[in-house]
Parts: sequence; C-alpha cells; structure tokens
Amino acid sequence: MTMAATFINPTFSSVSPSSSSSSSSAPPKLRSPSSSRRTRKSPALLRRISSSPPPTPSFAVIRCSAASPNPGSPRPPYIPNRIPDPNYVRIFDTTLRDGEQSPGATMTSKEKLDIARQLAKLGVDIIGAGFPAASKDDFDAVKAIALEVGNVVDAHRYVPVICGLSRCNEKDIRAVWEAVRFAKRPRIHTFIATSGIHMEHKLKKSKEEVIDIARRMVAFARSLGCDDVEFSPEDAGRSEREFLYEILGEVIKAGATTLNIPDTVGITLPEEFGKLIADIKANTPGIENAIISTHCQNDLGLSTANTIAGACAGARQVEVTINGIGERAGNASLEEVVMALKCKGESILGGLYTGINTRHIVMTSKMVEEYSGLHVQPHKAIVGANAFAHESGIHQDGMLKHKGTYEIISPDDIGLERSNEAGIVLGKLSGRHALRMKLVELGYDIDGEQLDNIFWRFKAVAEQKKRVSDADIRALVSDEVFQPAVVWKLHDLQVTCGTLGLSTATVKLIGADGKEHVACSVGTGPVDSAYKAVDLIVKVPATLLEYSMSAVTEGIDAIATTRVLIRGENNHTSTHALTGEPVHRTFSGTGSSMDIAVSSVRAYIGALNKMLGFMEQTPSEVPAERTPLSV
Amino acid sequence: MTMAATFINPTFSSVSPSSSSSSSSAPPKLRSPSSSRRTRKSPALLRRISSSPPPTPSFAVIRCSAASPNPGSPRPPYIPNRIPDPNYVRIFDTTLRDGEQSPGATMTSKEKLDIARQLAKLGVDIIGAGFPAASKDDFDAVKAIALEVGNVVDAHRYVPVICGLSRCNEKDIRAVWEAVRFAKRPRIHTFIATSGIHMEHKLKKSKEEVIDIARRMVAFARSLGCDDVEFSPEDAGRSEREFLYEILGEVIKAGATTLNIPDTVGITLPEEFGKLIADIKANTPGIENAIISTHCQNDLGLSTANTIAGACAGARQVEVTINGIGERAGNASLEEVVMALKCKGESILGGLYTGINTRHIVMTSKMVEEYSGLHVQPHKAIVGANAFAHESGIHQDGMLKHKGTYEIISPDDIGLERSNEAGIVLGKLSGRHALRMKLVELGYDIDGEQLDNIFWRFKAVAEQKKRVSDADIRALVSDEVFQPAVVWKLHDLQVTCGTLGLSTATVKLIGADGKEHVACSVGTGPVDSAYKAVDLIVKVPATLLEYSMSAVTEGIDAIATTRVLIRGENNHTSTHALTGEPVHRTFSGTGSSMDIAVSSVRAYIGALNKMLGFMEQTPSEVPAERTPLSV
Repeated sequence: MTMAATFINPTFSSVSPSSSSSSSSAPPKLRSPSSSRRTRKSPALLRRISSSPPPTPSFAVIRCSAASPNPGSPRPPYIPNRIPDPNYVRIFDTTLRDGEQSPGATMTSKEKLDIARQLAKLGVDIIGAGFPAASKDDFDAVKAIALEVGNVVDAHRYVPVICGLSRCNEKDIRAVWEAVRFAKRPRIHTFIATSGIHMEHKLKKSKEEVIDIARRMVAFARSLGCDDVEFSPEDAGRSEREFLYEILGEVIKAGATTLNIPDTVGITLPEEFGKLIADIKANTPGIENAIISTHCQNDLGLSTANTIAGACAGARQVEVTINGIGERAGNASLEEVVMALKCKGESILGGLYTGINTRHIVMTSKMVEEYSGLHVQPHKAIVGANAFAHESGIHQDGMLKHKGTYEIISPDDIGLERSNEAGIVLGKLSGRHALRMKLVELGYDIDGEQLDNIFWRFKAVAEQKKRVSDADIRALVSDEVFQPAVVWKLHDLQVTCGTLGLSTATVKLIGADGKEHVACSVGTGPVDSAYKAVDLIVKVPATLLEYSMSAVTEGIDAIATTRVLIRGENNHTSTHALTGEPVHRTFSGTGSSMDIAVSSVRAYIGALNKMLGFMEQTPSEVPAERTPLSV
Repeated sequence: MTMAATFINPTFSSVSPSSSSSSSSAPPKLRSPSSSRRTRKSPALLRRISSSPPPTPSFAVIRCSAASPNPGSPRPPYIPNRIPDPNYVRIFDTTLRDGEQSPGATMTSKEKLDIARQLAKLGVDIIGAGFPAASKDDFDAVKAIALEVGNVVDAHRYVPVICGLSRCNEKDIRAVWEAVRFAKRPRIHTFIATSGIHMEHKLKKSKEEVIDIARRMVAFARSLGCDDVEFSPEDAGRSEREFLYEILGEVIKAGATTLNIPDTVGITLPEEFGKLIADIKANTPGIENAIISTHCQNDLGLSTANTIAGACAGARQVEVTINGIGERAGNASLEEVVMALKCKGESILGGLYTGINTRHIVMTSKMVEEYSGLHVQPHKAIVGANAFAHESGIHQDGMLKHKGTYEIISPDDIGLERSNEAGIVLGKLSGRHALRMKLVELGYDIDGEQLDNIFWRFKAVAEQKKRVSDADIRALVSDEVFQPAVVWKLHDLQVTCGTLGLSTATVKLIGADGKEHVACSVGTGPVDSAYKAVDLIVKVPATLLEYSMSAVTEGIDAIATTRVLIRGENNHTSTHALTGEPVHRTFSGTGSSMDIAVSSVRAYIGALNKMLGFMEQTPSEVPAERTPLSV
C-alpha cells in the first residue's frame, strides 16, 4: 500500500521499555518460599506463622515487623468447640464458597484445588470449600480438596478443616458429609433464616418449626459421624434477639460446635455488630461450649471494622475471603483483618492473634485475582498495586532514612518482594536451568512438559526483550499452568485491521484429535473477526460477557494479558446455596502474549476449553426454602 | 492466502451481542438530572439534598430510601468556625489534591475543573482544589476552580468553599491565597508536623519553634484577608497529646477555624481514632471556636470506619475522596462515608447528616475513575460494578417480591439507573436530535462541534451494532469530550499482526498544522508497531508505563476502551505537597473504538497530546521541611 503525504522511514523509534521501578502498573512482586505447590514440604515454615506482638515503644510507630515469627505462640491444638488459647482467632476462608458466587467468578475444580493448596500454605484454620449440593462439579471440587488438602498434616499437626455448606435439609447435609468426610478434619456448616420477615415470607414456618428444623438437622449432621458442625442463623442482625439466643442455645444442645453470625446485608456499624456478638455471648445458654464466628458483608465498606469489632466482643472465628471478594460489595478481606490483628492485636486488642503465615498473602491474592477474574483496585489496602507505592520514586529517599516513619507494614511481611532486590536476572541467553531456578524463586515448582512449554515461550519473549522481568515470567506461567485441560489449541493467527475497515482474521487451531482446522472471518475489529473465526471451528455457542486486557510490565514490548468471560447457552447450571435457584455458569479464560490479538485469542480459547471441560449436569432438586441472603 | 487442512467457509458466526442485563461487566448505568455540566441551572435540585432520616421500623431493615429528600433540614448557613446545626457534618473532598497525588493520577486543569463542577453538583461543602505551590499548572487549576466553581451560588446560597493546601511558609500560603481568593468562600489549609520523630529528624526544630511557626503562619494567612483557615498537625496520631492540645489551642488563638486531624499512616483502629478526636475535643483550649476535621488513610482498610468514629466523637468535617483514591491504599471514600451517615445517621449516630446530593455519586465516581485512571474494583462498596449486581439475574425474582429484604440502598439513591429502565433507545436510524436527547438523559450537555463529532462516531458504531447502548454512548463521549486539546489526531491506521510475526502498522496522523504525516513500523505486536510508528511522527520521547483495555459492553462487537499512562523525559515536574520533592508527572490517555488496535492508538495519541499541552515549568523552590507523610 502506498502512502501520500510525509512519509517517514520505517525504523524502530527510540522508545524503550523502562526498567524504572517507579511505575504503579508493575504488579507487586512476590516471593514465596521455594516449597512445592503440590505438597507441604517445609514444616519448619510453620514456625514462622506469626501471632507476633509487634514492638510497641511509647508513642513510636506501631510496626508489624517481618522479623517477628513467634515461636512462643504456636497454633493451639484443634478442638472443634473450644480453643485452648483464649486469644487465638480462627480464620475461616470462604473464598471458594462465598467468593466464588460473585458474578463471573466460577472456578474449575482444578482452580479450586490450587487455591485450597495455597490457603493451606497461608495457614487458614478452616477452608470453606464449597456448596456440594449445588452441582456435581461443586461436590467433586469439595471432595477433591478434602481428599488432598485435608490430609496433608504438617509437623506441627496443622491440617486445615475442610468445610462444606448446606441448607437445613438432610439431602444437602448428606452431600456435604459425602464430600468432606475424607478430610482429617471435616466440618458441616448448615444454616436457616431466623428473622421474622424470612420465616414468614420465605420459610412460611413458625419460630417453633424453625427451631425444630435447626435442632434436628444439627443432630442429623452429628449422627453421620461429624463432630464439627457449624450453624448460621441467617439474617441474624434482623432476628429478634431473644429468639436468636433460644435457637442458638438449642443447636448447641443438639451438637453445634461453631455459631456463625452473619451481617447479612452489610449495613451494621462496628459498634452495632460488636454489640450483637456481645449480646449473644452474654445471653445464649451453653455458649461457653461453642465458638462464635463472624461473617460480615461489605455493603458500606465496613466489613473489616465490623469483623474486628466482632472479635473484640468475643468471636473467635472470622469468616473472610481473599481480596474481599464475594457477592455485591464482597466480604471482609482476609488480608486486612489478619494484618490489623497482627499490627494491633497485642497493643490494642488484648493479645488477639491468628495462625496465618502472612508471607503468603500476596501470592494467594494474585492467584485468586487470576482465577476469579475479580481484579483488585490499585488502592486496595494491603494487596493493591499502590499499597506500597511509597516504596519507589519520590518517597524512596526519605524512606531509607526513616523507615519507621510511614512504613507501617513491611512489604516482606506479606510476601511482597522489593523490585530492586531481584534475584536471578533472565535474558535471552538464559538456559532451562536458570529459568527453573527463577521459577523456584518465584514460588513455582514446575517440571517436565510444563517447564518445556514455558521455556519455549520464554525464549520467544527473550528474543525480543533485553531483560525478561519477573512479571513477564509470571504471566507466562499463568498462561501455561493455570489453564484448563486443552481441547482446542491455538496454532496460528493472522489479523489485518485498522480504520480502513474489513478487519480480517485467520486462525489455525489444533483439536483434541490432533488435526488442524483453519477458518477466517471478517469482523468489526481484530477481536471480533478472530473470535468469529474461532467460533466457525469450535461450533459451541457462547456469549462474550467481559473482555479486558492489561500489560503486565512497562514498555510497549510488554506482555499483555487478556481476560475474557463467556457464557454458554443454558447447559451449565448449578444451584445457588442461598437462593436455591439455578445459576448459569460463566467461564473465564486468560491468555498472554506480546501481541494483543494473540493474547485475546488465547484467552477466548482458554474460556471455551474451560466450558467444554465442564461436565454436563442437572442441578440438584430445589427445596422450598429460598433465602436470597448471604450467610 | 491459501490454507491447508480443514477450511471452513468464512461467514459470520452465530455469536451475537447479548442484550442480557445479567452481566457484571456492564458498567453501572447512571442517571443525572438533565442540568448543564457547565452551569448550575437547577437550584430546585438542592431541595433534594438529603440529610433525610430513613424510616426505622422496629427490627425491620434500615433502608435509605431514594424518596426521602429532607426539605425540613436544609444545609445550615456557612460560617467558617461554627456550624449552626450541631448534627451537620461538612464534607471536604480532597480528590483533586490527595487523590491526584496517587501514582499516575495526574489531571489537567480542564479535567480538574470538570471534576470540581461535578463536586459542586454533588454538594460537597469544601473542595480541596490542589496545592498551588506545586507548579504553575497546579496554581492555575486552583485559580480556575475558584473563579468559576467558587462563584456559582445557588438559590439556597450554597457555593462550595475552595481550599488550597500550603506548607507552613509564607510563600506557599501566599500562593494559595492568590489562587483561592477569587472564590466567594476561599480557604487556606496549612500544615506542619507535630510528632517527635518528625520534629527532630525532618524539621530539626523544637516544640516551641514548631508552635511559633504554626501560630505565625496561621496569623499570616488571616492577615492576607482570609477568614477561613484550616490547620493540620501532621502525624497527629503519633504526636504527644499534651503538645497537640497546646499547638491546636495556639493556632485557634491565631485564627484557625478548622483543625484537621490526620491518621497519617492509616493504622489506627476506629476506637483509637475516635478517642484521639474525643481527647482533642475535651482538652484543647478554645476548641469550641473551631471545627474538628478527620483525614483517614486506608492502609488497613479501616478509613471509613475511622472517619465515622471521628464524627461520632465530635468531628464535624470529614476529608474524603471519590472512590477512596489517594496515595498508597487511599483515603476514606466519600460515597461510603456519606451513605453510612445517610443510612445510619438518624438511627444510630444521633442524627448526623450531610448536605450531599447522593444521586450524583455514580456520575462523579465514573468521572473520577476516568480522569484519574484508578479503576474501581467490581466489589467496591457503593460504586463497584457488582455492588448492586443482586439486582439482576438469579436474585431478581426474589427481589421484586421482597425488596426490603436485602436492598439496603436504593440504586436510584446514588444515581444508578436500573438497566431495564432504559429511556431512549438508539439505533442506526436515530438522528442527531435523538442522540442529543439521549446525551441529556445521560447527564451530558453537549452541542456544536463536539456533538457533530460524537454523532459521526455514533453513526459508525450504529452501522455495525443493532442497538447502541448507554455504555457505548458514554464511551464515545469520554473519547470525544474528556480529551485534552488536540495537537495530533489519528486519521488512519492499518495493522497486520499474528503469530507469524513481523507485526506491521501504518499510521496517518494530522498535525496541529493540518498536514498529514504517515509512518510505518514493525514491532512485537500491533500496539508496539503502531506506537512506534506514532513515535516516528510525533518525535517526543515517552515511556509507556501502563496499558489496559476493557470492553464497555457485552458481545464481541463491543466498544473497547484503552487507557495508557506515559511519562515524558523529566521535563514535566511539580512539587509534592508533603515531601517537597519534585514529582515527575505522568499523563494518561483513553481511546475507544470497536477495533482494539484503533482504540490503543487513540489512547496513546490522547496521552501524548496531554503531555504536549502541559506547559513547561520549573518547580517552586523546595524548603527545608520534608515531611513524607500524608496530611
């Protein structure tokens, strides 16, 4: 094509990728101990689980030092209804249950298992692994987690409790038990609404009937052989207090070991929620034989404060999610609650502490962001890209001089590597061994074919970039490792686009049978035309719901990661835990490449593969109880 | 090009854009009264400013009804150091000062003015407009806001106070005064550190000297003719209480009318911060003649709770930002604090209320997200895309039946339009008038050449999409209206890319002189090659710091919006308010198109234009005081 007007000689310009560390776009660097992602190799790590009292000099800054493992306060032994140390707060992570119910956050069993392994590294006391009655997939995921993650006991006898959610009916409870009973420490969590409005309009049951159901179902759960049963009075905040004390007292008698108090609509203020917990503690008969738990929604942005208020008032289990994900405005975020307890537990909160190994926070946050597709805003507390941005640029100078003046949490403490402390530097001459070592440094234990695949992708990138950054490597790992089973694979792509219209794409895919398939299509742009070409081959109707992309590193030769969310046509459903209604699953896919068109197609094929990999299933029967509220 | 293997006939596939409303990707719809964006046409609106006590039936849900304007409690008259109604809480928005200091959030004067106009619609009491001593640009922006927004008085005599920040020196204070004095209600805000560690290491001054400086500088500010002076003891939380009472007492005597208490490192718990405010209120001599203010950082995710605790303890001004943006983990977010006060002010907080017209929250949030480039996570309270996601899909049915059960805030109340209540529907046959009406419905008052430009872009989209959604229109408006002055303009782009390599782009740009310039370049992908081609023409060295893209609507024929952040080579600096050090400005640009390559290039050219439009400037002199902490 010839061009009129000024024609400039086509050469590379002077713009080069910046290696500056002052960009806010660079994802936080993370460091994980080089333990396997599959097994808990390193029990000595647990000595680092820190409930450490930070040093509290008079009117000096209260810092959470990274160098404060607390070997003097190991995690107390696990007894379902009692904690030998009155200051220990159990962390119940519900990322895989409440978090996964966020729009578009559907995860595969493999993804859930990956996250459960990471939660065990993090040291959460209880993993809320899912709602087994929702679908066969959900059941299988919970069972897989119970079988694997629920059986890896470390030298300190830590193994996470594996918990499944159930409505108050025998079928649900049996489904939970069949899924969790393979764990060393299985737990059944059952719930029923206790507020007047719900009992009348949804359950159409009297108080007496509700108490009777709760008592019988808790006893039923115990009768299956489960000695760890959690009960939630849904909509507790709006329930009559006297009735609440009564039903909680009854379920304790029936064998409930943990009582979870949800702030269902996320509208209480900290002092209100604290008072609710205090009232329950003061007035429920037999409460000394059970653990009180919090579950705070974030509708007013107060979930972290409410959770802490609950712990101050006597709750010794807190239900939280990584990155604070969950329906609507999400839940209290694990990292905020844990770091607040770590920073202030000793000095302000009477010695409260958790068993979390905070150095795994960043890695866990990244994994959940990746799998759930719920991105974290740059100014998110603790794990946002800017949360430690005062590290670099303008503040760096002052920081080195007076570190204590405004660094309240050490980046090391949450596993955030300082960008100027990079270890192994990779370039195009680096070999497989160097790559392997770098992966270990980044916390990945990858070998065999996966390593080969990453190595070849790495070489392709290194051919074009002087220095391959940690973020580049991480993007490649995500693209290769965090992928569903491959049905279709991108072989080649060619795209022409621009303002002149008639955008055209040609794709060559390799099917499960190893055959090549080629199609081309025109469209409104490169994504439209390429996706249409893919559709011509794959022939599975899907709707694109979301599409986003970001460069993982600075510079125009950065790797771009695309994320898409698609929905199939009504053949993939599960049952919503709280509403009892069918949920149409959506499937996410990510893809990385230095070419945005290629990364877009990789992401789409990833999502299609995820959808194709999901087994067809019929939703479990929907009982009459419909309680569209959060437990 | 011929293809081997299976060749599939190139046709359009069956994938079509979904019109479902259940996607979480669709940005929240917003509705604004059809008032002009330039002038305050509609004083009657102010009657809607709601400090309304929500109905509080016994143990029923506490709802914030949209239908509860409170004509009985108008905003009390403005007196700098006294509020006639003891329950009224002033909202000090510092988005343009503290928020703009977030990495990459640099805004042009025009953008700041747009936001200031929107903040006036929202009804904030005080607009923290900037730090005039930072640079000539910052000075000009504050002055422009004072001249325009600070002079539009409505029928209820509301006009926002325009405030500028200064360090405790005459030069800074004079710069503020020269910028804000054109407003009807100008305010000077000055600060100095009061903690032991800061006074010793940074200021190298004794307590007596610090008190002396504070007293003299407050008096100096008053002597200029400013009767509204705010003072902040920086690092108040770590200052000796007795010293704090003393210095605050002295600045009150010297004429300070508002005392702002910053939680500098964002690490206090709500009860700690509440106690700090209560202590100051109880022990500072003359405190009855001044307003106490809060300024809470969010490092532990507690800023909203801390701000509310401060108000409960007696603060009657709260410093907040839209979307909670700000350095590190940001500040307390206006929307969370305001909605918490609206929902709980009457029932729990003893009648506290604000003058905010909450119906403008969503529009303001969108504008700040757009201009600052700090995206809001989907589960952000109040303004996240999922915050009201229970509206659609699975929950919709239950919701219609029992609205009160879990809708704690009405979407209407924050200006969020329900997606199924769309007004005018646009298609390819729609004319200029229909588009104009739609724009008015969406809150934009656009005419003349801008309308023409949007109309032609709209027609191009409508040619290819059956139904042009509100989000599409909004993306086009952003692309046309929220743009810097044009230096370079994209005329044509052509790109070839794919896995086969040698990605090549050709661009044709129109310069300020109206001449066409064409260049081509190869690169690692379409963005790399196209940006390099642009660089060959524009010849201004720039580093790409961030790149991200998202589709604004569902479906593969959606409009994609790209956002980039670039940095020039050290010739654009301003002075950081708190550290006193030079800041290298970064410039953001956005671009929208149905073609991701085109939107990418538009965004890059937008950022380059913004950079070129910034006047060269020398930073103002840096005084010895260096206090890298947040006020």
